[in-house]
Amino acid sequence: MAQSYNICLDVGGTKVLGAIFDENREIIYRLKKKTTEGGSSTENIEQVIISVVEEMIDKSGIKKSKIHAVASCAPGVIDQENGIVLFTPNLPMRDYDIRTPMEKRFGVPFYIGNDVNLGVLGEYRFGAAKGYKNVVGFFVGTGMGGGLILDGRLFTGNKFKAAEYGHMILDPEGPLCGCGQRGCLEAFSSKKGMSAYIRQQASRGRKSMLADQVTDGVFRSKFLKQAIAEKDPVTMEAVDRACHYLAVATGNMINTISPDVVVYGGGVMEAVGDLFLKKILAEVDRYCMPTIRSTVELKVASLGDDSVLYGDLAMIEDSDK
Amino acid sequence: MAQSYNICLDVGGTKVLGAIFDENREIIYRLKKKTTEGGSSTENIEQVIISVVEEMIDKSGIKKSKIHAVASCAPGVIDQENGIVLFTPNLPMRDYDIRTPMEKRFGVPFYIGNDVNLGVLGEYRFGAAKGYKNVVGFFVGTGMGGGLILDGRLFTGNKFKAAEYGHMILDPEGPLCGCGQRGCLEAFSSKKGMSAYIRQQASRGRKSMLADQVTDGVFRSKFLKQAIAEKDPVTMEAVDRACHYLAVATGNMINTISPDVVVYGGGVMEAVGDLFLKKILAEVDRYCMPTIRSTVELKVASLGDDSVLYGDLAMIEDSDK
Repeated sequence: MAQSYNICLDVGGTKVLGAIFDENREIIYRLKKKTTEGGSSTENIEQVIISVVEEMIDKSGIKKSKIHAVASCAPGVIDQENGIVLFTPNLPMRDYDIRTPMEKRFGVPFYIGNDVNLGVLGEYRFGAAKGYKNVVGFFVGTGMGGGLILDGRLFTGNKFKAAEYGHMILDPEGPLCGCGQRGCLEAFSSKKGMSAYIRQQASRGRKSMLADQVTDGVFRSKFLKQAIAEKDPVTMEAVDRACHYLAVATGNMINTISPDVVVYGGGVMEAVGDLFLKKILAEVDRYCMPTIRSTVELKVASLGDDSVLYGDLAMIEDSDK
Repeated sequence: MAQSYNICLDVGGTKVLGAIFDENREIIYRLKKKTTEGGSSTENIEQVIISVVEEMIDKSGIKKSKIHAVASCAPGVIDQENGIVLFTPNLPMRDYDIRTPMEKRFGVPFYIGNDVNLGVLGEYRFGAAKGYKNVVGFFVGTGMGGGLILDGRLFTGNKFKAAEYGHMILDPEGPLCGCGQRGCLEAFSSKKGMSAYIRQQASRGRKSMLADQVTDGVFRSKFLKQAIAEKDPVTMEAVDRACHYLAVATGNMINTISPDVVVYGGGVMEAVGDLFLKKILAEVDRYCMPTIRSTVELKVASLGDDSVLYGDLAMIEDSDK
């Protein structure tokens, strides 16, 4: 693998991030495009993904023959073994074999996995969860994702659908979640959950500087950071509520897995992770058994927005073994 | 291992069950004693455990030289690797090395593990969960235990403390649990949880035939079965509430693990498992994601009170490998 490069992609509902890693695992080139730049059909999205790879190769000046592998994530249920996107709530791909066209196009192995699973894998191999054996990850963004490293391996369960504890029900009579259930962690603690609370308060006539920033049901994390910095009262209520339920869910996952570490990643944690962690730590002891709590650490992810790209790289390296 | 015998024990807070398995995995002899028969000190309890093994050998007429191994469970946190009882809420054993005296006494390998973990292992190897790869077990008795088989192996997490999802919080404002938290699954759905509900209703002047059967905070499962058979209204309310929260917890565990099967064991399920399963099945689809639900089966345990003894046997066979 001397002098070779790995191309890693983070395919989301709105944008595709690309990065080229050199053999020292340094990112030497980056590119970002809108996922639906060419239209929102499956073919158009595949074309965007291909064009990101091609443009990165072109502009970085690396030789095509030096590319070792290409890896990507997608937000949804992914058959990681066969490279098939089984289901994505935010992209028009269903039972879609993306490996075959990608390998045909680039002539190197192509791997794909679930975005949050890979984010946690990235943190486990190269970030805040490095050196631990059992890892519970919470990724707090528009939604709430989970990922599990158990006995040192990414755990994917039956048909790669494990770790959806973002939809763990914490109050059967709680607010409606996008998934159709009530009182899921996501409905309280994700950007969607916090936005819903802020909109609800706005509809009662309460002012909040974050209310104006909610578009398409969510705010951007940088506006959350600003509103927190200015101690906007309604925002702080939404944050307290989010952290309360994150603490309960963390306690439940500590009791369930007895992990060595719980790691919190995603856009919200990248922006305001220290505050969230402080609030979670202030409560979590109440929600899990002291003997299990005593052997687990809680940490903010350290790779920021690159967690998933590093997870892609880990997936490539695992496949090489 | 020709013509050899394994001695398996189920050490509980009130009784020690013993069984001798022959080489065809048939139970050829059984014995039961009160755990605190000789007193409630650690030494006395160890003496009861030893006496169960000795008496079974004596009375069954098997030769001591034909004993292959002895295995046991205990209710608590067990260092399965080193044979140490780290902590048991209902027995006076703490950081207690039980392997050394047992191996010294009987001259064969001695293994010990957590009771519910071994119950689920027994069902996985020889019972209702046989042939599956990822198993979530709920054991409904005085308390509420859990056990996880992941990728075909018993999962024990950091320091053997995993699978305590009996203390998963389903309502942060719910009833107080013995563990000190509020709204745990155990506080709703175990015998203790159902008993608390029934006592609460009795204190409001409502009659229930099960109320008179509650001693030391619990009823015996056969009285639950009778009260259900006679459709005792308060009992049926307690059962509906227990099954509702068991369904929510099942949904949460399905989302978290994406198991192939969920298996329900323990004394309550042995007595009234069909009714409980029917009620859980009527609700569970609401509490997990349809795509994950579609690949999981829900089953009542098939080995009854012997789940744990078969789990001991599986632990011995795994150690032989």
